[in-house]
Amino acid sequence: MNFASDNTAPVAPAILDALVEANRGFALGYGNDDWTHAIERRFCEIFEREVAAFLVPTGTASNALALAQVTPPWGVVLCHSESHIATDECGAPEFFGNGLKLVGLSGDGGKISPDGLKTALAGYGGHSPHQVIPSALSITQATEAGTIYRTNEIASLAEIARMRSLAVHMDGARFANALVRLNATPAEITWRCGIDVLSFGATKGGALAAEAVIFFDSEVAAFFGERRKRGGHLLSKHRYIAAQFLAYLADDRWLALARHANAMADKLAAALTGMGLRPVWPVEANLVFVVLPRVLDAKLKAAGADYYVRSSGTLQIGPDNVLVRLVTSFATGEEEIDRFVNLCRL
Amino acid sequence: MNFASDNTAPVAPAILDALVEANRGFALGYGNDDWTHAIERRFCEIFEREVAAFLVPTGTASNALALAQVTPPWGVVLCHSESHIATDECGAPEFFGNGLKLVGLSGDGGKISPDGLKTALAGYGGHSPHQVIPSALSITQATEAGTIYRTNEIASLAEIARMRSLAVHMDGARFANALVRLNATPAEITWRCGIDVLSFGATKGGALAAEAVIFFDSEVAAFFGERRKRGGHLLSKHRYIAAQFLAYLADDRWLALARHANAMADKLAAALTGMGLRPVWPVEANLVFVVLPRVLDAKLKAAGADYYVRSSGTLQIGPDNVLVRLVTSFATGEEEIDRFVNLCRL
Amino acid sequence: MNFASDNTAPVAPAILDALVEANRGFALGYGNDDWTHAIERRFCEIFEREVAAFLVPTGTASNALALAQVTPPWGVVLCHSESHIATDECGAPEFFGNGLKLVGLSGDGGKISPDGLKTALAGYGGHSPHQVIPSALSITQATEAGTIYRTNEIASLAEIARMRSLAVHMDGARFANALVRLNATPAEITWRCGIDVLSFGATKGGALAAEAVIFFDSEVAAFFGERRKRGGHLLSKHRYIAAQFLAYLADDRWLALARHANAMADKLAAALTGMGLRPVWPVEANLVFVVLPRVLDAKLKAAGADYYVRSSGTLQIGPDNVLVRLVTSFATGEEEIDRFVNLCRL
Amino acid sequence: MNFASDNTAPVAPAILDALVEANRGFALGYGNDDWTHAIERRFCEIFEREVAAFLVPTGTASNALALAQVTPPWGVVLCHSESHIATDECGAPEFFGNGLKLVGLSGDGGKISPDGLKTALAGYGGHSPHQVIPSALSITQATEAGTIYRTNEIASLAEIARMRSLAVHMDGARFANALVRLNATPAEITWRCGIDVLSFGATKGGALAAEAVIFFDSEVAAFFGERRKRGGHLLSKHRYIAAQFLAYLADDRWLALARHANAMADKLAAALTGMGLRPVWPVEANLVFVVLPRVLDAKLKAAGADYYVRSSGTLQIGPDNVLVRLVTSFATGEEEIDRFVNLCRL
Repeated sequence: MNFASDNTAPVAPAILDALVEANRGFALGYGNDDWTHAIERRFCEIFEREVAAFLVPTGTASNALALAQVTPPWGVVLCHSESHIATDECGAPEFFGNGLKLVGLSGDGGKISPDGLKTALAGYGGHSPHQVIPSALSITQATEAGTIYRTNEIASLAEIARMRSLAVHMDGARFANALVRLNATPAEITWRCGIDVLSFGATKGGALAAEAVIFFDSEVAAFFGERRKRGGHLLSKHRYIAAQFLAYLADDRWLALARHANAMADKLAAALTGMGLRPVWPVEANLVFVVLPRVLDAKLKAAGADYYVRSSGTLQIGPDNVLVRLVTSFATGEEEIDRFVNLCRL
Repeated sequence: MNFASDNTAPVAPAILDALVEANRGFALGYGNDDWTHAIERRFCEIFEREVAAFLVPTGTASNALALAQVTPPWGVVLCHSESHIATDECGAPEFFGNGLKLVGLSGDGGKISPDGLKTALAGYGGHSPHQVIPSALSITQATEAGTIYRTNEIASLAEIARMRSLAVHMDGARFANALVRLNATPAEITWRCGIDVLSFGATKGGALAAEAVIFFDSEVAAFFGERRKRGGHLLSKHRYIAAQFLAYLADDRWLALARHANAMADKLAAALTGMGLRPVWPVEANLVFVVLPRVLDAKLKAAGADYYVRSSGTLQIGPDNVLVRLVTSFATGEEEIDRFVNLCRL
Repeated sequence: MNFASDNTAPVAPAILDALVEANRGFALGYGNDDWTHAIERRFCEIFEREVAAFLVPTGTASNALALAQVTPPWGVVLCHSESHIATDECGAPEFFGNGLKLVGLSGDGGKISPDGLKTALAGYGGHSPHQVIPSALSITQATEAGTIYRTNEIASLAEIARMRSLAVHMDGARFANALVRLNATPAEITWRCGIDVLSFGATKGGALAAEAVIFFDSEVAAFFGERRKRGGHLLSKHRYIAAQFLAYLADDRWLALARHANAMADKLAAALTGMGLRPVWPVEANLVFVVLPRVLDAKLKAAGADYYVRSSGTLQIGPDNVLVRLVTSFATGEEEIDRFVNLCRL
Repeated sequence: MNFASDNTAPVAPAILDALVEANRGFALGYGNDDWTHAIERRFCEIFEREVAAFLVPTGTASNALALAQVTPPWGVVLCHSESHIATDECGAPEFFGNGLKLVGLSGDGGKISPDGLKTALAGYGGHSPHQVIPSALSITQATEAGTIYRTNEIASLAEIARMRSLAVHMDGARFANALVRLNATPAEITWRCGIDVLSFGATKGGALAAEAVIFFDSEVAAFFGERRKRGGHLLSKHRYIAAQFLAYLADDRWLALARHANAMADKLAAALTGMGLRPVWPVEANLVFVVLPRVLDAKLKAAGADYYVRSSGTLQIGPDNVLVRLVTSFATGEEEIDRFVNLCRL
């Protein structure tokens, strides 16, 4: 019963098979190989336009490099106060961005609201050169709370950002989970509603270590190759990261993997709700946040359930309860859900 | 006939098998897994002492993070002028080191000499705070010229460095190639002769993407975990990078792979020498540098031989010749050597 | 009627006289002069212990260099959300600190409370290496709200900081204003209650451009000379910055200048209170924050009064009012106060 | 007999008078004052075009901020190997430039030659993204060797730079000394021959602490105000730095001051030459480099002469000699020259 994170899952078999399959003969390094050329074309297909795509091994690299590309050192990246870039990357965006500033906005269910964004932006301007300058908006899709921005919500935020000349970044570590829930196309939830750069994750979705930075305007990507190399994020045997992404995107595999993860979260949420343990935020991706009595938490842990207790700045939990995060993945089995749910019954 | 780089080779089958084998069940991310614990112990065995080891996906990351750890921003890293950190990493050491300075020393066959180091150091001191401060020495083993520092040579350089309180770093992207040639132990050519931190490469030797930063004094490694994470170089599904290194180091596999690569270089060098094309530097690892007539270069390229032409600041080549670098690897076959050599015959 | 800032004031005549007096003959540059040696000794007297003191031309440099010295790049500086370092230095601390993070705490009247600090610190720990690490506390004395930390308040905050190994920095841009109000010694409100490094400002107090970074433990100041030089903050004709500070500190001049500024603020506050315009925060230094009807604001501006309207995250102002900041200085005349106050009468 | 540096001189009396004169009443801070507006207009007159000018307190700040503005982090600044930015600024350009790289070119008499520049540039290109990218050329006028680039020499270098899209920076710490020797206009030796950005120094020429960064195309200066503020280099009582520059430039004072300094160097050089101590490089500004017997050096030092012994990478000095640098300034008296010269006689 491992619900600790989607990165505790193994590699999806078809993706690992692709790695093995790629292990034939010699190939030029650093992306000058057939696999990389193929995935570059594939990204253009997936997003229905020319894109500039760069593969990197981690989500932190993907986010930090992308943000550094669109934000000057005296710039502010507006993000959710609970976003991964703000809380879990040990300051990587500030490091890659030469001291840029992240400003965390609150917002229900991990989502930034248009009003919240407007209010934050209203605090800037007219105090140059003493004040830093809002330069980018970063939203997470799906969010760290397991919720999903609707297409019109993204468009609203992006429009507000555009009015102030902010670039718009999407942290898509769980992009596929959002996509399949929205029943939309990749284009529809990215550049068509105002996203400039996407950190497109495959690792949590089933790859070994494969993330892509996708620029929807290749001019914005100028010298990003140098930036990536300089950050140590250009893999030498590059075919293997490209092969992972190719397999992930082939035959709608990424969608199928995400659908399974989401379905397992739905099943878990439904069962918990049925016994009075309603998730605290809408379960729209593969994360379930629920308040458990401490006694139940202890029982579950004792029985081998693996998950993290989370703090919350906004929820009132009470001393006898804990807020827990349950993450499902492509690898989560129905029987794990059943076993967990049964343990929750008294 | 691919002699372009050792990173054009595929993954050694046993290492890929280990990846596949690791793909069972769930495992905590970020290095909290059994594979990582095992490789940490294994490094201690290999080096015959407690070490602090950190895995990263690229050699550039390994070098730049290691140097940033032992060099302040106002510090100088003395290195060979043709070293990888100086010429091929797009300024990664300067980036990770917050603007530290690399100073390249010349030296025959890619090696820094004790006299060269002393002369360079003599130029510093007595001009604080206007002048940057020599803080680290970085040597490459095997060097980019395919030569190898002898144990006593390393000890001499390290002793000079120690007198000026410099940390000593070894870029060991081809560490195994050097090791098997010297017939020494890993301890003997590192901490026992004064190395403080080693960038221990496995990728060129046969891994997919696996490099380790090895600190021989764990106090020097303080907060290196944060530095790595902040650089985006902490892999989430960490078991797979650990599994690569475990397989690389198991059963003396790394030594066998390196011995083969070196043997192929030896064979190539001997054959070329036999026909009057003597390598310009001693062939001690898996690189052969040789001056070819342009007409032969064209013939080889036309026949499908893949390698890079190099410039040299010190060698006189002449207008009708080119200096070429031929790199062998664990995957180089004898028949490739034979075919190449035959093409060199008129 | 200039109440815009204490930096709109000219230079105190005695300090300018000292500049003119220093303009005799040759003197070695970069601090190797008699004036600098004298001010270094003087700081030791003033603070009743050996200190390491470094002069710089701006308060932003002083703060940013000091914080960078005591905070690693993955560190957090906890400060008040309205502090100068957080809102008015265009990210200088993040730049000099290679991407360190400022975290702003709320707190009444510009002051961080012990409980607020404890609560903030409780949010860190146990999530290494993903989370940044609280590394320094920065408090402002006097605060941007014109209030003053009592000695025991500083000691309480410093004690909490010490328990978590945080360095404690004091932004003393208005250090003298606080000192004379507290009727304490410089030692008592700094190192004796736990301050590690002080940004000691003289510019707002009457100098031309003179700020000092004072380390109370010289080991903490290691290589700060290089850091300052590298930041471009080591003046070549250094005697003139030293001469300013010498004159500022001579004959208790700094205290007299600050007492006058504070007295003018007191007089202004008393008069405004008398007519129902009570300052919103205690007037303890040389700043008066008061809510004015917009109609009065317009009248004052029309009459030539110069001051800034401020926003406040916590105060409810109402649409017909504005919050204004009135700053007095050594140069503020009683007649300016009288004229302003008279204008406030209907 | 102080020939240590032009920054050991005091402030020229007329400039100090201007400081005293500026000390009237209140003035808005941070450059929103009449003096600053006047100097901005004055720079446009001096350079016969619209320029964007920013005042900073040190030459190191001026150089480092200017170079960071025109060079990306993965960029190379080509400069003379003996230039101030390369040897005396403790890595400030690398710090402000987020790890950019300085590459020092050799060249006779402190000057970069067109051929030297071409050769250096030929080593770059075709190896993206592994190699850093030449992005700026920095030349020093007058050079650290006391020589001067002729207008056509600057134009040749700038033309070569332009072909490779390099920005061209001039370190004009001794700009006036060069200008008066060349009998040219400021425009002729800057933007008219291809300079993009000038670090225009007044401190060495007679100011207290006043340097200007001059952009000849204001678009290149975008957000330079933020960069300066973020670097802590925006003075709050800004009128005093502006007043210095106004006085420096008024009534051709800067030219007169520089002419005197140059004349003293000429006189010294002529006298030394007359007694067989010919300067090693042409004396074209206010620096005289001469090889002295050690015994004479000792005698001069004993008699109170103040100057620095310099090393040289290219000159053969011999064990019984030293290379010394003698710097004259506006404040150097003829009698000092005479006394020094007399001491040189046996």
